[in-house]
Amino acid sequence: MFDNWAMTRMALLVLMLSGLAWAAGLMPAPAKLTEGQGRLAIDRAFTAGAGGCADPRVASAAARLVARIAAKTGIPIPEPRGATTGRPVLSIRCNSAGDEDESYTLVTTAAGATLTAAQSIGALRGMETFLQLVAADGDGFAVPAVRIEDRPRFPWRGLLIDSARHFLPIEVIKRNLDGMASVKFNVLHWHLSDDQGFRVESKVFPRLQQLGSDGLYYSQDQIREVIAWARDRGIRVVPEFEMPGHATAILAAYPELAAAPGPYQIERAWGIFDPIMDPTNEALYTFLDGFLGEMSGLFPDPYLHIGGDEVNGKQWTASPRIQEFIRQHGWKTNHDLQAYFNQRVQKILTRHGKRMMGWDEIFHPSLPKDIVIQSWRGQDSLAETSRQGYQGILSFGYYLDHMQTAAFHYAVDPLAGKAASLTAGEQARILGGEACMWAEYVTAETVDSRIWPRAAAIAERLWSPQSVTDVASMYQRMEAVSRDLEWMGLKHRANYLPMLERMTGGYPVEPLKTLVDTLEPVKLYARSQARPYTSATPLNRVVDAARPESAVARECLASPALARRWLARLRDQYAELRPALRSSFLLKEIEPVSADAAALGQAGLEAIGYVERKQRPPQTWIQQANALLERASKPRAEVVIAILPVVRQLIESASRLP
Amino acid sequence: MFDNWAMTRMALLVLMLSGLAWAAGLMPAPAKLTEGQGRLAIDRAFTAGAGGCADPRVASAAARLVARIAAKTGIPIPEPRGATTGRPVLSIRCNSAGDEDESYTLVTTAAGATLTAAQSIGALRGMETFLQLVAADGDGFAVPAVRIEDRPRFPWRGLLIDSARHFLPIEVIKRNLDGMASVKFNVLHWHLSDDQGFRVESKVFPRLQQLGSDGLYYSQDQIREVIAWARDRGIRVVPEFEMPGHATAILAAYPELAAAPGPYQIERAWGIFDPIMDPTNEALYTFLDGFLGEMSGLFPDPYLHIGGDEVNGKQWTASPRIQEFIRQHGWKTNHDLQAYFNQRVQKILTRHGKRMMGWDEIFHPSLPKDIVIQSWRGQDSLAETSRQGYQGILSFGYYLDHMQTAAFHYAVDPLAGKAASLTAGEQARILGGEACMWAEYVTAETVDSRIWPRAAAIAERLWSPQSVTDVASMYQRMEAVSRDLEWMGLKHRANYLPMLERMTGGYPVEPLKTLVDTLEPVKLYARSQARPYTSATPLNRVVDAARPESAVARECLASPALARRWLARLRDQYAELRPALRSSFLLKEIEPVSADAAALGQAGLEAIGYVERKQRPPQTWIQQANALLERASKPRAEVVIAILPVVRQLIESASRLP
Repeated sequence: MFDNWAMTRMALLVLMLSGLAWAAGLMPAPAKLTEGQGRLAIDRAFTAGAGGCADPRVASAAARLVARIAAKTGIPIPEPRGATTGRPVLSIRCNSAGDEDESYTLVTTAAGATLTAAQSIGALRGMETFLQLVAADGDGFAVPAVRIEDRPRFPWRGLLIDSARHFLPIEVIKRNLDGMASVKFNVLHWHLSDDQGFRVESKVFPRLQQLGSDGLYYSQDQIREVIAWARDRGIRVVPEFEMPGHATAILAAYPELAAAPGPYQIERAWGIFDPIMDPTNEALYTFLDGFLGEMSGLFPDPYLHIGGDEVNGKQWTASPRIQEFIRQHGWKTNHDLQAYFNQRVQKILTRHGKRMMGWDEIFHPSLPKDIVIQSWRGQDSLAETSRQGYQGILSFGYYLDHMQTAAFHYAVDPLAGKAASLTAGEQARILGGEACMWAEYVTAETVDSRIWPRAAAIAERLWSPQSVTDVASMYQRMEAVSRDLEWMGLKHRANYLPMLERMTGGYPVEPLKTLVDTLEPVKLYARSQARPYTSATPLNRVVDAARPESAVARECLASPALARRWLARLRDQYAELRPALRSSFLLKEIEPVSADAAALGQAGLEAIGYVERKQRPPQTWIQQANALLERASKPRAEVVIAILPVVRQLIESASRLP
Repeated sequence: MFDNWAMTRMALLVLMLSGLAWAAGLMPAPAKLTEGQGRLAIDRAFTAGAGGCADPRVASAAARLVARIAAKTGIPIPEPRGATTGRPVLSIRCNSAGDEDESYTLVTTAAGATLTAAQSIGALRGMETFLQLVAADGDGFAVPAVRIEDRPRFPWRGLLIDSARHFLPIEVIKRNLDGMASVKFNVLHWHLSDDQGFRVESKVFPRLQQLGSDGLYYSQDQIREVIAWARDRGIRVVPEFEMPGHATAILAAYPELAAAPGPYQIERAWGIFDPIMDPTNEALYTFLDGFLGEMSGLFPDPYLHIGGDEVNGKQWTASPRIQEFIRQHGWKTNHDLQAYFNQRVQKILTRHGKRMMGWDEIFHPSLPKDIVIQSWRGQDSLAETSRQGYQGILSFGYYLDHMQTAAFHYAVDPLAGKAASLTAGEQARILGGEACMWAEYVTAETVDSRIWPRAAAIAERLWSPQSVTDVASMYQRMEAVSRDLEWMGLKHRANYLPMLERMTGGYPVEPLKTLVDTLEPVKLYARSQARPYTSATPLNRVVDAARPESAVARECLASPALARRWLARLRDQYAELRPALRSSFLLKEIEPVSADAAALGQAGLEAIGYVERKQRPPQTWIQQANALLERASKPRAEVVIAILPVVRQLIESASRLP
């Protein structure tokens, strides 16, 4: 199932993609693309028909495709009613129902389009490509004449969504599944249990949701609804239930399973906490057998993820009884105890028909080879497990909550580092990767903007040939994907202005938008160090509205004309914003940032003036400008001024004048 | 039920409203408001409890209120779980369940808030007021200390939504019901049948939806869902089924009921069409008895609207048999025949427990006094029917599809014109009014932006005391309402940028936004004269994205500084927009508008220069400027440049210089 495609067959990439205006919407880039002659007009007569596909998902995806093209174009294309006669505009064929082979061929001409796939899953993937090709030209909406032969580089292309730290209603999950399908992700890794919450209804152990969720959990019907929604879109759902650590919510319901006496409360803060299960307690395995048995029935995917990361072991170390257990077995460390626990759990999962997944920490030679290791540690760690015969996926470098740029994630390849020198057989055990949306600092309102559009860059890394690395092309196409996602109901753009308006109240929002367009949240773990956060802390501040990556800052670095315009705006925004800054408690913290951004705008424009006049600025100006750069480069209110490097360049250019 | 409140008791209005920053969100303005001392902080501990209200709608509205405050503020207020202990922050009391008395008293202090109402419906209204009071100040979110005694001026405050011309999915109806409740509308007048479609599932006559709807209709379950949704929010649902004209869709299903031989097809164009029912055919009344009987069971409201407008009578005139029928009865005109038809229908409706409503045209002294006349003709017509003992509501002046300003609608009073000189008893028969959202030129994507926020001005006219007429205050508060509506899921703002991005494709959207922010669609019926439209015509052009009323144009008229900034932006947008104008077929038509807007920006800035320098411009400049004004004032692409009056003022000022 998870054979990697031979890399040599992947070298067919058509890098000219970025040169074709109409290809600007294709993401991930297809493996092979050949341009044809002409265009296929998309109008009210558009139809999509799935003949000969035994899988009913294809017909329903075709019906959705028609509705999505209607939404994207604004053309009132009638919904299909009853049996269609004649050849549809887009004719979809697949040889069999199945989820193994995602390859497809899409041929479009002025007369119509044909999508063929060996299996139904390939037809689902190809329809997403067709939708991305729809664009307005001078005469109307159309799809260019093209031949695309496409297949994924990796079979496991996932997105982890953490519903434990902040509960996310199923509408949020469903719309993100729509977004995932559009960029050909195929695994939703659903993080459903952690210290801060247990999020699934258990009928066998109802105390889990009663005492572990604050009432914020998914019913089993909702879980089934999400799984069906995902399956319709060719996406698997792998649930994760963290154990033996990150399990405070479970231990709040069942303190007797912990390594230290309870009672336990749902954890409200973020971090790594002490409560942990007691692997020496046979009752734990009885519980896990019942619990994992129930969850194995609820989640049909062959895999179940047990977490296993960040075990601090303090409760184990503090317990003479547990330390004695370790000694009796001849082990040396708490990690050996965790390995024992994992072996027990793995056997339980096998009995319930599941293959076990876990983070790096579960790796231990005592476990069978059918488990999958998810690596937050990196490609070298992954290479090591692969060499020892284990399958793995990469998440190192794909943490969306770290607020890195899309280019940063795009440059992370699962087969880089020590993984690059693995044998082909070893590389084949590296199944792909997963973007991770950890939810300490997101809510239903903001999560879309943290996932999208950056996750599309990771989706392309995992689907497209390894040689697809043009960053400028990636950004151009990511912008088109971002627009397309809006038509599917994602809120990554829609929620931005309302959040800013919440802060400005009755004052004009435009100057705040000008400022925040040039800001970014602090990176990596800086936010956790800035102030004490809990699950009760509102996430309604500028740092929550600011996009992870400022497109304005990026584009200003590339375009002096654009930079000049934005510097002028930044110079002006502070005076315009001042009344709002002083009347809204949500904006007070941002006043020094606004003031410094205005000073940066002014300094940048002055620097441009010096450079244009070829006049070296006075030394005092240079000193003041550098002092401003230093002051303004410090994070405040948990944001950074992302446009600062543009100003630094200008000041340096001016300072270097003879 | 529909007694008007004595106007004298309404004179308690506190016009200082507009002077209170925190009152900026109150719309409609309450009848009486007294300021208190301090503020009630809104934080995570906020709770709302409805003790002693027998009506379960109050408790569910209270739960929604908590969720809506959480959405508006971004504060993660926990959902209420189980029975609450202690006094809630907002304590809601009502004496009885009922929908007659909408009055309420809301008292807020630093210690808590109390909402009291005689009936449950008043509690629902008061909760909307409470939500509008929530705002950010320098210390946090809060509600000011205040005492509000409020009650509506008119008992019938409706919004007509036309689901016939363009079908609107129930999500659209539901979110607009949310919006209606927030500004205290209490009637959804649902226009469900017209020439272009019959939109309700009939189980008795299924051919109606099978042949009359293109598959676009509401199931009876969906209808019940909408009615329940509305009822939860204190809104009645009055269905309208047009007869004997505007009934082509019905006649497509049952051509034998028409005055001329069929077959008939669903009408695709807009206008007044010939197909009409045959009032001389007894089978028609058999059909209507069955049909109206079924619909009377489905829609619980005491009223059912039969339309009755725009009967052109051509088929009646052309039929010797029908003309003979008229002669036999001693009548003179087709209108007498329609009156006969209405009497028959009215008796059928009475039998099914309904009171009949219709447009002006149904008025005839032969009808009983319990019918209600809806007037598109105006207050004089309404006064006449009232004098004759009939109840009526006003829709003249409230047509949202006419793209008039909020100030225009706001100035229309049901008791103006000849209605102003009616006796108190006659005036009491004027129950209120209804805003009308006719749907020839709206889709699910655009309809919210045509209804909101302008409908809020009409809602205030119908709720607040007659003396509330300050236009500046109205616009300020309407802007706050518009923001609040976003948190409820209305799309009037959210869909704007995506629509513009659809047109610009990969080009920057900002210059297009600059332009379209200053444009408005053509007014009244101009669009229908601009080109042939049908239900198949895409509504995805600039005219569809442009807001009915340009806030930028309005604000620039009041603020020279703002005007100067926008003129500079307009001057620049054309050059920036040119690549997109030439690559997207959706933008081609707008190129002359963009070019003229740029010229207006340039001319306006030059005029400012002349005025500031106190230098009279050359005669050739004045001539060219006036020629530009004349050219640019002509609608093109079905839009007008709304900011033009600003430029005209500037040019006139410059031209008048000595």
